[in-house]
Amino acid sequence: MTLGALDTPALVVDLDVVRANVAAMADLARERGVALRPHAKTHKLPQVARLQLDAGAVGLTVAKLGEAEVFADAGVEDLLIAYPLVGEPKLGRLVALARRVPRLAVAVDSAEVAEGISRALEAVGGGLSVGVRIEVDTGMRRLGLAPASEQLVALARTVAALPALRLEGVMTHEGQAYQSDGEAELARAAAEACDLMVASAEAIRAAGIDCPVVSMGSTATARFAAGHPGVTEIRPGTYVFNDRSQLAHGSARDGDLAAAVVATVVSRPSPEVACVDAGAKALTSDRMIVRDAAADYGAVAPGAAGWAAVGATARAAGWPVARASEEHGLIAVPPGGELAVGERLALVPNHICPAVNLFDAVTVVAGGRVVDRWPVAARGRMT
Amino acid sequence: MTLGALDTPALVVDLDVVRANVAAMADLARERGVALRPHAKTHKLPQVARLQLDAGAVGLTVAKLGEAEVFADAGVEDLLIAYPLVGEPKLGRLVALARRVPRLAVAVDSAEVAEGISRALEAVGGGLSVGVRIEVDTGMRRLGLAPASEQLVALARTVAALPALRLEGVMTHEGQAYQSDGEAELARAAAEACDLMVASAEAIRAAGIDCPVVSMGSTATARFAAGHPGVTEIRPGTYVFNDRSQLAHGSARDGDLAAAVVATVVSRPSPEVACVDAGAKALTSDRMIVRDAAADYGAVAPGAAGWAAVGATARAAGWPVARASEEHGLIAVPPGGELAVGERLALVPNHICPAVNLFDAVTVVAGGRVVDRWPVAARGRMT
Repeated sequence: MTLGALDTPALVVDLDVVRANVAAMADLARERGVALRPHAKTHKLPQVARLQLDAGAVGLTVAKLGEAEVFADAGVEDLLIAYPLVGEPKLGRLVALARRVPRLAVAVDSAEVAEGISRALEAVGGGLSVGVRIEVDTGMRRLGLAPASEQLVALARTVAALPALRLEGVMTHEGQAYQSDGEAELARAAAEACDLMVASAEAIRAAGIDCPVVSMGSTATARFAAGHPGVTEIRPGTYVFNDRSQLAHGSARDGDLAAAVVATVVSRPSPEVACVDAGAKALTSDRMIVRDAAADYGAVAPGAAGWAAVGATARAAGWPVARASEEHGLIAVPPGGELAVGERLALVPNHICPAVNLFDAVTVVAGGRVVDRWPVAARGRMT
Repeated sequence: MTLGALDTPALVVDLDVVRANVAAMADLARERGVALRPHAKTHKLPQVARLQLDAGAVGLTVAKLGEAEVFADAGVEDLLIAYPLVGEPKLGRLVALARRVPRLAVAVDSAEVAEGISRALEAVGGGLSVGVRIEVDTGMRRLGLAPASEQLVALARTVAALPALRLEGVMTHEGQAYQSDGEAELARAAAEACDLMVASAEAIRAAGIDCPVVSMGSTATARFAAGHPGVTEIRPGTYVFNDRSQLAHGSARDGDLAAAVVATVVSRPSPEVACVDAGAKALTSDRMIVRDAAADYGAVAPGAAGWAAVGATARAAGWPVARASEEHGLIAVPPGGELAVGERLALVPNHICPAVNLFDAVTVVAGGRVVDRWPVAARGRMT
């Protein structure tokens, strides 16, 4: 593909950086002796999943049955659906998945969800079963049971007794750590969440129930959780591409940015503003996942990465997307800043995961050249 | 389709309400003697476009070439691409569209964009041309030229002189009106924008240049703009479905809500919170388009509409989606409020247009029954 043929906005992935990010996280997990089960919602790409598995990931985490189906189709044999599955359509699809995925697990945080899943599996007979991770709320206040609580032990007992469920352990998404300010506070938040999870597993074990897995999930805390005694698994997702929030949390440096939305300047309505053809429909309206985040929509990528391969200039590095509507991104141009209609910019989203979900395909660059175009196979899987 | 077969989250469209909304806006335009050119980015559905055209719309507005291509494929013969088209891939596609769409127009706000378009059309010969609307900034500070300015008249002169362009008039998106508080302030903001546009057209006419069209665009201002002397066209989009922002601005009442995201309660982590399976990946992270908007993600639909047809309960009417992550919506449950795992809720997004863009298909209800499923044909058209 020639450069001129690439239309904007385009989601561009630098495969060299992806490979380095995948290797670095795999090395961390290997060195610290924990299993790595990346959350595939960030990339939604079988090609990237393959890189992760080849580097040593034990399997994938997904958020939706529809994502699990896409990765099962791609041959992935170990999948955790980290979401409570409710309702007949989903339970029917779970049964079909359980027949063809060698190692399949689900997350639950209530007896009724666990019982529904077990009943659906029992109904088809043949000894079909799935693994179960009980979700614990270590501070995000989203879903999950209180750490080391009576309710948690009771649910573990229920799950262990259900015929079609195998209790594997406990899991959490310690997203509250993204409210930390600075490395020390982040390390403290990660350690606190890990301690709560280890205590949760021990409470279950003290009741005479096997609970081998203690699973933590977030890119920002991965480097702390991987070394924490008693933690057995990490589930980072964003590390594969990184984004502006990860830069802010020190979990990525500029050179670790592997994805950007490449956009074209379409208007210079004033010296202070450049309008590009990527707005909230390309970047999302997500704020940075940072305490007291600024109300902007992303920023021009710092420095030159693979984006030069698709004609993006580095002259606007760091300028923020100060405002946006669906199709318009308004770049704040500093005094004296130059930028002409027709120039291309690489924009780093605040949060890469939902941005990937907006694109039907990604443009892949490697070695400074466009090398491929991948359909975002697991995009838009709502159910 | 049976009720139990509908999986969630699902975007559900009540066709009875759509028909009423389409008829009401068509009646308004007819009574006030203005052309109606709805913005199709809200629905992205050829089926809804057909209803709008059958009710008297002169054509459609779209934001992207890709959207124009979808509606051209569906037989729409009058399209305005309300966006500056920059770069060779887009200009090539514009030429192809100009060959097959009887009435095609584009928006420009600079000579370089206008000249690029004219050159591309001239290059293929045969007298191919497109209409042009010059974009004026009436206060949104997004793109567009200053109202009635020398630059505006100069660009009109440039466009009028370019061989493959036909100057049709001026257009604006008066989105700044969404910052108004209350009906009187909204009416004033609309009138001010209309006055600026009429003055802009008159400045162009005073230079001896034809400028027949004065086009205003927003649902909230449509009822004021349609009666404003000198305004010839309105381009509302959201009115067809409506959303929480339109309710807040008085441009829709509860009974005018024609689309909702139907979700299932998957967890009751505490008495104050119900977690549903629709988060920012279904509702977007858009705030309400309202001054000092609350940082929430939508609310349970007020009262019963067609959502009962897909099993949504009305018992949680009005409760806000107080927090959300990609796959989790956290409903704030008032004291004593009841809601069980497995119950379905109809959620009204703050901003329906980008929410529609997240779904591959909509479930259509009419007469209290599920009657169809429509692919969102113009979804995800990034370029």
